Parts: sequence; structure tokens; C-alpha cells
Amino acid sequence: MEVTRKNYKDCLNTVYSAIEEADFLAIDGEFSGISDGPNVSALTNGLDTPEERYTKLKKHSMDFLLFQFGLCTFKYDQTQSKYITKPFNFYVFPKPFNRTSPDIKFICQSSSIDFLASQGFDFNKVFCHGIPYLNKEEEAQLREQTEERRNQHANGVGTPSYISPSSSKSPAHVPDEHKVFINKVVEKVEALFTNSDKTLDLEPCTGFQRKLIYQTLNWKFPKGLHVETMETEKKERYIQVSKVDEEERKRREQQKLEREQEELNDAVGFSRVIHAISKSGKLVVGHNMLLDVMHTIHQFYCPLPEDLQDFKEVTMCVFPRLLDTKLMASTQPFKELITNTSLAELEKQLKETPFKSPRVETAEGFPSYDTAQEQLHEAGYDAYITGLCFISMANYLGSFLTPPKAYISARSKLIEPFFNKLFLMRIIDIPYLNITGPDLQPKRDHVLYVTFPKEWKTSDLYQLFSAFGNIQVSWIDDTSAFVSLSQTDQVQIAMNTSRYAESYRIQTYAEYVQGKQQDKEKLGQPANSMYIPVFFEAQLCGYLQFQSINMFFFLHGFRGIRKRSISPVQAEQGGTEPLITDGWSHYSYPDSTGSKKMKTDGQRR
Amino acid sequence: MEVTRKNYKDCLNTVYSAIEEADFLAIDGEFSGISDGPNVSALTNGLDTPEERYTKLKKHSMDFLLFQFGLCTFKYDQTQSKYITKPFNFYVFPKPFNRTSPDIKFICQSSSIDFLASQGFDFNKVFCHGIPYLNKEEEAQLREQTEERRNQHANGVGTPSYISPSSSKSPAHVPDEHKVFINKVVEKVEALFTNSDKTLDLEPCTGFQRKLIYQTLNWKFPKGLHVETMETEKKERYIQVSKVDEEERKRREQQKLEREQEELNDAVGFSRVIHAISKSGKLVVGHNMLLDVMHTIHQFYCPLPEDLQDFKEVTMCVFPRLLDTKLMASTQPFKELITNTSLAELEKQLKETPFKSPRVETAEGFPSYDTAQEQLHEAGYDAYITGLCFISMANYLGSFLTPPKAYISARSKLIEPFFNKLFLMRIIDIPYLNITGPDLQPKRDHVLYVTFPKEWKTSDLYQLFSAFGNIQVSWIDDTSAFVSLSQTDQVQIAMNTSRYAESYRIQTYAEYVQGKQQDKEKLGQPANSMYIPVFFEAQLCGYLQFQSINMFFFLHGFRGIRKRSISPVQAEQGGTEPLITDGWSHYSYPDSTGSKKMKTDGQRR
Repeated sequence: MEVTRKNYKDCLNTVYSAIEEADFLAIDGEFSGISDGPNVSALTNGLDTPEERYTKLKKHSMDFLLFQFGLCTFKYDQTQSKYITKPFNFYVFPKPFNRTSPDIKFICQSSSIDFLASQGFDFNKVFCHGIPYLNKEEEAQLREQTEERRNQHANGVGTPSYISPSSSKSPAHVPDEHKVFINKVVEKVEALFTNSDKTLDLEPCTGFQRKLIYQTLNWKFPKGLHVETMETEKKERYIQVSKVDEEERKRREQQKLEREQEELNDAVGFSRVIHAISKSGKLVVGHNMLLDVMHTIHQFYCPLPEDLQDFKEVTMCVFPRLLDTKLMASTQPFKELITNTSLAELEKQLKETPFKSPRVETAEGFPSYDTAQEQLHEAGYDAYITGLCFISMANYLGSFLTPPKAYISARSKLIEPFFNKLFLMRIIDIPYLNITGPDLQPKRDHVLYVTFPKEWKTSDLYQLFSAFGNIQVSWIDDTSAFVSLSQTDQVQIAMNTSRYAESYRIQTYAEYVQGKQQDKEKLGQPANSMYIPVFFEAQLCGYLQFQSINMFFFLHGFRGIRKRSISPVQAEQGGTEPLITDGWSHYSYPDSTGSKKMKTDGQRR
Repeated sequence: MEVTRKNYKDCLNTVYSAIEEADFLAIDGEFSGISDGPNVSALTNGLDTPEERYTKLKKHSMDFLLFQFGLCTFKYDQTQSKYITKPFNFYVFPKPFNRTSPDIKFICQSSSIDFLASQGFDFNKVFCHGIPYLNKEEEAQLREQTEERRNQHANGVGTPSYISPSSSKSPAHVPDEHKVFINKVVEKVEALFTNSDKTLDLEPCTGFQRKLIYQTLNWKFPKGLHVETMETEKKERYIQVSKVDEEERKRREQQKLEREQEELNDAVGFSRVIHAISKSGKLVVGHNMLLDVMHTIHQFYCPLPEDLQDFKEVTMCVFPRLLDTKLMASTQPFKELITNTSLAELEKQLKETPFKSPRVETAEGFPSYDTAQEQLHEAGYDAYITGLCFISMANYLGSFLTPPKAYISARSKLIEPFFNKLFLMRIIDIPYLNITGPDLQPKRDHVLYVTFPKEWKTSDLYQLFSAFGNIQVSWIDDTSAFVSLSQTDQVQIAMNTSRYAESYRIQTYAEYVQGKQQDKEKLGQPANSMYIPVFFEAQLCGYLQFQSINMFFFLHGFRGIRKRSISPVQAEQGGTEPLITDGWSHYSYPDSTGSKKMKTDGQRR
């Protein structure tokens, strides 16, 4: 169901009840851009810490606009053994509510816009009919302003911005060139008092002329008139003068305030849908959803906190239960079966054996999507597909139970290991952001931090380290990069060799981290407490019955992971390495080619 | 004529010849926003210097996108005594040319977008079919890159980004999970060698998989193959393998380069129209055109220079002859006759006596505009209307000649006083930016610079200066403002009174300017040379035959102008004051009400 400003109010109850009855929800956002940073390799370094990645995304991605929000609700029908879906595709735009409401500026990235354009995205629907919204703070501010204005009116203060201290004591000064104009207005108003008309609409005019009219009428006719600025459909402002007794005047003022109050409720707009999702506490599924979650909170709740830990807490308040299908597909037992975890490919692969397409039906009154006719990058469709992927994967987990189960609900313990862990793009050795606990801290003692002249390219680094076999380069900026060696014992050799180098400088990763922490302390910020690595909630493994699959991942977590973050050529082929890394290890490669081009939305998933 | 990416190449010659044959050109731009500054009063202070205003516009307006460019050419037909017009409405969008071309980010201001939406603006045409463009530097860079690539190919280097030093010496390492995939590709390519097909299109796949394919094929089949990445309409990338002999391979490489070269020419795109306007040296007319000129140079020529003087020089190179109809309408003999200089109102007023609607006809093959059915804020229409206004005003000047002339050409000496002076919005005492010379420097010795706590509002300032009669407040930021007193001799009294004040501080304007200059010098920048005021090209007055109108403006320029910049109540009513100031003095009022809301595009004109 397509929802714009036109039908939003009519749809709201349908949306509320769909959320209320659902077993789980799937969401997706489309943005006006991905990154305003200098280049994608600086923005998504393969050896970012979760804190660094969060800071970068916050800094370089939040000024884009989430302008299409997809929500698909899934309710399991026990009797028919199938899911009933209700897909919604919301167009969202921060239309200024009035002249004093925030005038949002947002960035568009031409590659993202061009990509969406090529997918048939309808920008007119966003910009002309997008549903407005306010975050919590803006909402509170506007409610306060309206309250203040109400109090001022009650105290008879009038419209203060139009009346300067001097003008209330003396007649308005009308500059010569406006005298004819103002005199005509006064004549018309005098005529209004003698004729049978109740109101008089003046011609549209400038703000200065309106000020003169207000001042003049206020002086000449202190009683018996209600004067109000109105707006034509073309946004031309004009003044409406109404003949009223004191009681009527007050009633009109009151009416005006009530109208404002209702308009204000409308201005909260789309945020109400997010509030409803949040309040429901339902499982919210997304594909590669970190940016979706960040944007949703930033746009509809509050500006993102500085600190990752605070972000995690806010996220848990807004979305108490999240699941990322890209992380799920990249993890055992799926990662072996799924070679490409982009949403479109995942959906295709989950139709094939050993997976089963879920049985779903679109609820009556909702237009049904045809997955054969891909409508990717429409947020409502992407949310729908994401939900299908989740169901297929969840049900596949059921096949390992004794006896096997064909249907696994969104409340099943089987999927709990995936809760509240959001996929981290292109980080070599940290697959996910752990929203409900400390993040993984893989060892990085085979990693060197290298600084060099800005003319250097990837090939210069290959040259420099040519004696050490395969290396992996993760660019930080024009003059620095991480270089991962294939063996930790090479680190000392590299350090020794570089001692007398003048054009470049090498530090161990530990030295680099220490240096950064010292910089932070100099700036008066407390150093991050060092988290003890927590291995993927091993306590949950008790619930799992995956007798036939490799349990290593759940049991051993990330010990030894550094072996896998080096070049594949040198990696051990044995069975004891952690399997979770393979699924996304290839994301680091595009960066190491030295390409500094940003990825578009199309490449995001 | 509407011009998008679809018909751009076909239209280019029509555009060129229209410019070539024209007597003058009118232009107009529509932008994605006006100002990203904190508020309009800080951005357009009524007492800005031209340098300050330029710096603010450059800083706060250039990140918006000029996405619709209107051009209307006017050619006078002597035999029919009327103008033949050719209006063009170009949709412009910085579609990235390829993966390494600049990925432009631009800001959208929701109030501006909402305003354009309400006027029926078609955003899909911009974003889906906008004509791309490059500025001079980007064009040069891309030409250089293509040249480099051509040289590399000539030297047989291949595609360097895909081949790392190690991989060229050894077979590609294929991670386990991709082995089946790569083996299948190799099988297919082997089959290609034995069958009669010439090319093989592989399935779309990831960047990593393409890298593996390139490496593997490069290793296994060093000769006889041409491997190229192609893109489907849906932007999915896939590899095409072609069976070729060495000669054919080279021919293909060459073809590819030539294709790239042509694509690059296309990428320069809309900038070619601006180059043609520039080269023509024709008079270019606009309405309130400073932002149009700044955006045009910024987007299609070069980033704007830091310094105003340099900007003036660049402007003269790009547009050797400019005329601003808003300035013209605000100047004698028009200012007395025209109360509202917004484009729509100006056009209406110039249809009435004593003006005459110009005789115009749209050229064959061009859709004609109906001025009764306003299509304002379509750039092509606005350019057309602007041209009409110019003709009406120019012809009106002819009525003062002896004998009167009904037609005044764009080359007439009568309009030369208006050349290269761009209207300055909301500056009390400097009506225009003088592109070809130093700017006016009105005396400001009745102005005080006041700093105060950030809680203060306009009413607090009125309170503070209540003893001094009418004052005028021009906000600078939350904690400072200019206060113009009605009489210069009050300045000393105000200074004396404030000597012991603790919450606020008063400086004279001269002290303020000195302080700013000292700050600049501390930063190592040279102080601006103080220009000697130049009076509106008085030497041109010899050509003018306006016997019946007040010549003061042309003869006396801006002496005594400060009398007019104070509140109208106190202003002298005598005939000796300079008349040029009245036309825009009212622009300062909206700011002094303390409203901190930005104006939208609709309010710009």
C-alpha cells in the first residue's frame, strides 16, 4: 500500500492494527545518499573498530534524507499454515509545518539519486506528497510554542512580532510610496463597517505592506475587527479582515489555536508510525540494517548520540528486538550455502533447495508483489522480500530439529542468537555490531599502521612489503593505511627494517591504538574502557539442536580469527578456523584495489 | 522548448543559433535551496558590506544545486517592429559520468523544495533526465585521465587496478566458496574456444567475483581473449568474454577508448550552453540575478574565488555584459512608478500605463508562453518574463528622448548605466554590486555595533535605545546587531551612556570595522584596500536626455544617503535626498521584526 501525505491520515489505523496483529515486522529505507565522506575506503576501513565505524557513519551519512520507508507486517495464520502480509510503502518528506518550524536541509548524492532514478523511483511523490515528520525534540518545541501563543492570546497580548513598542503608542508611519495603497485598504475596511459583508479579503501583498496594514488597522480600529494573514494555494499571502464583536473575536482566536493544535498533531506525521513500531516491541527484521536503524532514530527520534554505547541504548529503547538478514545469511549454517548475500541474490537462492519459499499471501486490500517481477529498491518491496528471506532461513533452522519442524516462529529460541546484532559492512574481522553487549575485539597483532607521502598508491605499499608475501592493504586516508601481514612473526622484521626509513613510518596496531587513546585523553575525553571479548552468546547454544552442523562458531567465537583476515592465499585450509568470517571477508577487497569511488545505494546491499 | 538529457544533443545546434542571432539573452535559474545558514537575518544583514555579502552567499548558498536553467533569446525583427523569442527550459543534473567521475553532493532545503513542488515543478525530469555537466577543471581532469588510459593501453599495461603485483606472477587464489563458480566460468570459456560463438556473456556477479574472473582468465588464457565488464540496464555488472586475434583485440581496445572520448564530450553536457552564452558576449538580462550568476559560474566554470574582486573578474570573463531588471526597476525613473519589484508584480505593472507591453512573438517551433496564465518559477518562463520587463523599461526610457523613440535596442547608450550592476537584496544603503568597479561606500556614522546576552530580543534593543526615538535594528547573530540611530549626533550620547554597562557593549561602526580589519590582519590576510566611492558612472549622464525627470540620482550619487537608511519617520521629506535608496529600503524591515526564518525561493524575487 502506497502511503503519501494525501492518504496518510486515512491509513493510520490500518497501519496501527497491522503492527498490532503481526508476528514480526520487516523494514527498509531508501536514502538520498550514502556517504558524503571523501571516499568509501576512508569511510569503511576494513579494520575499523565498531566505535570508529559508528562515528564515521554518524558524521558522513546522517545528513542524507530517509525519504522512503518500507514496512511489511507478517502474521502467521495457523489454520492455513501461511503468513499473511501487509506491505506499506511510505513516502516521507520534512515539509515545513509553518514559518517557524525547522527548515530541514538534507544532502543528495548524485550517484544515489541517479541509481534510484534508473530504478524508476518517483521523486515527485517524495517531494510533492511526502508525509511530514518531527523528531521528539521538535515535537516538544512546537507544542511549547503553541502553548505559549495560547497563553499570550489569553492575556490579550496579541501578535507580538508585528507590534514594536513605538508603533503601539503612535500611528504607523506609512512611507510615501505606500500611502495610496494603505489609504485604499482603510477605505475598504470603513466600507466593511457600513455594508452587510462579514469578511473582506485584501489583495496579496508584501510582508512589509502586511505589517503596515496590521499597524494601521490596529491603530484606527482597535475594536470590532479580526485581522488574519491567509495563504492562497499558490502560497501568496493576503490579509483577511472580519467584522466581529468581542465575543466572536475571542471565539475566532480560540478556533485558530485549535486549528493550529490539530495541524501540529499532523506535523508529527510519519513519526507516529515509528512510535507504533517501537511501542509494539515486535521483532523488526531488516537487511544490512545498520544505516536504516541509524537514520530512523536520527530522523524520527533524536539526533544520534556521540558515543556508540549511548547509541546502543537508544536503539534498544526504539527497537527492542532487531534481526539482520544479511548477518544471518553470512553466518552458519547459511554461509556455506549462500555465495552472495545481496538482498536480490539472497531472495533468489532461498527459493532453491535446501531452502523452501515460504507460503505467504497478501492481505485483502493490499496490492500483492510479484517476486518474479523484481521491484527492488522500492522500500515496501524490499521490506517484503527481507521478511520472506527471514522466514525461509528461520524455517531452514527448523529442519535440524528432531523431529524437524517446517514452521519456526519469530519467537523461537532458534533465532535468538541473531537478535540485536547488526551486520557491519566491510570489516574484516568484526562481523556485526552487538547492540545488547560489548563488541568483539579480535586480535590485530599482524596489522601494521603505515604513514607515507600522499603520492603513494596501493602499488607502493605492495612494493614496500614485497618481501613479506601476500599482504592486505586497508586505506585510512591519503597518507595512511593498515597493512595486514600474513604472519604475525613478520611484524618485528618489518618494524626493524623500517627503523631508518624517512619517507614512511610503521607502527604496530597496538601502538596505533595507544596513540589514538592518548590523543583522546589529551582532548579531555575518557579513554574507552577495554571490553572483554564476549563470544557470541555461547550460553544460548544450549537451546540449539544443530547436531549435524559445525558448532565451532557458537562455541569458539573468534579465537584465531586473525589468520583469516590475511590474504586468502596464505590462510590455513584446516577445519579449525572460525567460519563466520568467510561470509564477508571479500568485502575488504574492493577497497584494497585503491579505488576511491563511493558505492551507491544499489551496491549497499 | 523543454530540454532534457533525452533531446539535448538534438537541440544543441538550435540553441547555438538562437544565441548567435539574438540581440540579447535573458536567463534564470531554479535552485534546490537558497541558504543553509542559521537564519536569513544573519545571512543578509542590512548593513553588510559587499565583501561580507559575497562571502556569506558563497559560504551558505553554493552547495545547493542549480537544477533548472532558463534561457530566452530575443531577436528584434526590424521589418515587423517586434521581438522574436526562443525560450529554452533546461533540466540540469550532475549524473556521474562514470565510476571515477566526481560524485556531486548537493543540499536541498525543504522549504525551497516544498515551494517548487507547490508550483508544479517536475523533480523526476531533473533527477531522471537532467542534462549532465562538468566545470572546466573536471573537464580537464577527465580528459587527462582518458589520455592516460589511452597511453597505458598503447604500452600494453592492461587494466592496472585489477592486477596486483603478486597476482600477475602466480595463479589467482580462489577461496573455496568461489571455486565451483570460477571453475564453471573456465569451462564456459574453454567451450567458447571450441565452438562458433564469438562472445560469451557471463552472469552478473559481485566485484570480487569479477576480480577472480579477470585474474583467472588472465592467467589461464594470456592471449586470444578480450575481457570487458559490461553493465545491464539495471546497472548489474557482468563480464563479456570475446574470442579475438591480437589485431582484433587492439581494434577493440581502440574502439573502447573512442567511445569513452565521445562519452566524455557528452559529459561536458550543459556547460556547453553556458560556454556559448559566454562566447557570444551578448547582453545577459536577469531578475535579481546575483545568485544566478554565482551559481552558474560555480557549477559550470570553477569554484568561486575567495575574494570579491576576483569574483568580479571571473564574472566579467564569463558574462561580459549583465543587466539586472530588479535593480533597473528600483532605480529612477522606474522606482516612483513601481511599488513592488518582484518579478511577477513587475511584469504586471509594466503592462499598465505609462509602460507598454512589448510586441513579441515566439519563434516557430517553440511553444509560446501565455503571460495571463502565470507559469512562474519555471526557469524558461521566468527568463522570458524578465526579457519582457527589460524591453518595456528600455522602451520607456526612449519616451524621454526628443523626439521620443518607441524602440530602444539592447545596444543603446540609454541602458548603459545599468550594465554590470547586480541588485543587492536587503542592504539598506548599497543598492547593487558593481561588477566592473569599486563598490559604493556609504557613510555609516549613525550606526552602532551592539553586543549583548543571547537571551535578548529586538524588543530589548528598542527598550535600551528608547530615549533616541526611532531606531533600526539589523541582527548579525544571536549576540550582536547593528542599531541605526536617526541622528548621528546621538551616537556620542549613546556611547557615553553605555560606558558602565555590564550586560551589553556598544561600539561605533568605525570601531567595529577597525576591529574586524585587525582580526583579519592577525590571521595573516591583508586588509581590504579602502575603495573611494564612485558615483554611478556620472560620465554616462551626458548621453541621457531625461530632461523631465529628476536627474539627481545620476548626478549626485550617494552623498547623504545615510539620512535615508534610518527609520522613515525621521527622514527628510525634501527633494534633495537620493532617490535610488527608497526602492529597496523596505527589505530591511522583515529582519528587524526579529523573525529568524529563512525565505524560500518564492520570496527571493
